Amino acid sequence: MSTSVNGAGVAIVSEAVCEQIVGRPEAFKAVESVFGAMARGDAYNFPVVREAIGHADALYGFKSGFDRAGMVLGVKSGGYWPGNVQKDLTNHQSTVILFDPDTGRLKALVGGNYLTAVRTAAASAVSIAYLARKDAKVLGMVGAGHQSTFQLRAALEQRAFEKVVAWNPHPEYLSRLAAVCDELRVPFEAVDQQQLGAQADVIITITSAFEPLMMKEWIKPGTHIACMGTDTKGKQEVDPELLAAATLFTDEVAQSISIGEAQHAVASGLISESDITPIGEVINGTHPGRRDDQEITLFDGTGVGLQDLAVASAAANLALEQGLALRIAL
Amino acid sequence: MSTSVNGAGVAIVSEAVCEQIVGRPEAFKAVESVFGAMARGDAYNFPVVREAIGHADALYGFKSGFDRAGMVLGVKSGGYWPGNVQKDLTNHQSTVILFDPDTGRLKALVGGNYLTAVRTAAASAVSIAYLARKDAKVLGMVGAGHQSTFQLRAALEQRAFEKVVAWNPHPEYLSRLAAVCDELRVPFEAVDQQQLGAQADVIITITSAFEPLMMKEWIKPGTHIACMGTDTKGKQEVDPELLAAATLFTDEVAQSISIGEAQHAVASGLISESDITPIGEVINGTHPGRRDDQEITLFDGTGVGLQDLAVASAAANLALEQGLALRIAL
Repeated sequence: MSTSVNGAGVAIVSEAVCEQIVGRPEAFKAVESVFGAMARGDAYNFPVVREAIGHADALYGFKSGFDRAGMVLGVKSGGYWPGNVQKDLTNHQSTVILFDPDTGRLKALVGGNYLTAVRTAAASAVSIAYLARKDAKVLGMVGAGHQSTFQLRAALEQRAFEKVVAWNPHPEYLSRLAAVCDELRVPFEAVDQQQLGAQADVIITITSAFEPLMMKEWIKPGTHIACMGTDTKGKQEVDPELLAAATLFTDEVAQSISIGEAQHAVASGLISESDITPIGEVINGTHPGRRDDQEITLFDGTGVGLQDLAVASAAANLALEQGLALRIAL
Repeated sequence: MSTSVNGAGVAIVSEAVCEQIVGRPEAFKAVESVFGAMARGDAYNFPVVREAIGHADALYGFKSGFDRAGMVLGVKSGGYWPGNVQKDLTNHQSTVILFDPDTGRLKALVGGNYLTAVRTAAASAVSIAYLARKDAKVLGMVGAGHQSTFQLRAALEQRAFEKVVAWNPHPEYLSRLAAVCDELRVPFEAVDQQQLGAQADVIITITSAFEPLMMKEWIKPGTHIACMGTDTKGKQEVDPELLAAATLFTDEVAQSISIGEAQHAVASGLISESDITPIGEVINGTHPGRRDDQEITLFDGTGVGLQDLAVASAAANLALEQGLALRIAL
């Protein structure tokens, strides 16, 4: 057998090692940095492949890209298998594969399930860091699925939040969010949607909804909203009128208007592509971001391959530094 | 470290193990079988991603697909790095990643460089097996690059060839083919293009040409030609009039007319998409293949992701059976 565990070669970074070494600060930094590179034109996403494979109701595909600034090239491969939960497996299955941009040789294989969760959380956290009012006190959570606790933890680190209010179509899952708040000693309250809008200074929507869950008239002036659930044609979390009223930011404009939350407001002519700013411009200082305390800012987080590659590259580098990567020859 | 070498999990199959266990018969069987599945509609290729990344002159991308009959799902990832040769590396760098179609979990990581060579050789060999005259005696090789020896060895096993004639734009490389013929005790002759056409019963073109190297009037009735070099818009190996005169077969019609050898004859209106038959139909017995000894048959081998997945799946299965796969947990 030519494979050797101790030689140089491909770094294998397991899910467990990723959980051990990639925390919220590392994920935040990686996502912030690649959003900046995207806005400068130093990093770009390749076309997304997404296929209903006709087996096990699975949606399978790839998100890929190249970050010339960070010298990160690769692909996140995987998909959604709705029957997995009955087999005690995560429905979303992801693996990130990184290549050496100088030679094309395989560089690292990185478990992608945990990283997908933290990079998605990092995206809304970055948007809060750059766009929410500094004096934001109440965080509103719309959605209480598996991903919601990741968003909650990352969001709470961005402002001195004094309270969390939450709503979910299935209220029985709100205990997940309540448990995190309990652990972090932040008061928690289950509310209805109107109450959530009336109280929250920052709102994160993280659902699989196909219809607006939050209406424009429920949202206070000065609110920052991160819409994180819509990543497919047809999905929708908020009122298109809210997008028309807000200053709009996103990870990637092309995805925002086609499969992101902005798809509906664009389709109905309420906004146009030019109304949406890549958040990387705010990170880079080429866009001022929030202008005043009355402005509603909305971040449409669609999820791009470069986010996955950025956190996986951080994971691989940290794992190698700390001797936690298995090295194999291929 | 949570990775364990001996546990169940992901199979890692190195380049060296692939070379050891995947011979021409295994590659032939895998490619024949998946071409059949494609023609039955049991297997399909996903859209190809191919990007000039703007670094190191590299072309990078993915070919992927799903074979429902063979239950093979995955992606070949990699590309072409023209500067690699100066670093003592192969310019083409490939890795195949296989997933469990039932759960989406990563199943195997397989070195793809050697397998790409044998699956490409297997495709022209399959075309010879199904389309060349049974009494073919002379094999003509157009091209003498790295890949040509793989095509030659696989082709020689399909008929009782008594001689090989060859031509290459750079004649100094013909020694590669001569050496293989020497080893296999088959007479070899370097010829010009017209002589090659006049002598050969079966011709394989395997070049990176951008203009016709073989003209229609040089080809004998009854010849079978496998055009294996054209996989990109603009590349071309033979006279479009030859395609108009031949009965046409391919791996995948959509690729044949867009990036394969047939692109030119289709663009100039000499043939249409409906003139091209998937070779899988011949394999499945739903198309008769060659009708008589005077017919010219032409196979346009464009190279599809499912070929890569098929041979990689064979490699992973054989490596696991023989205890040659490294097993890791991800």
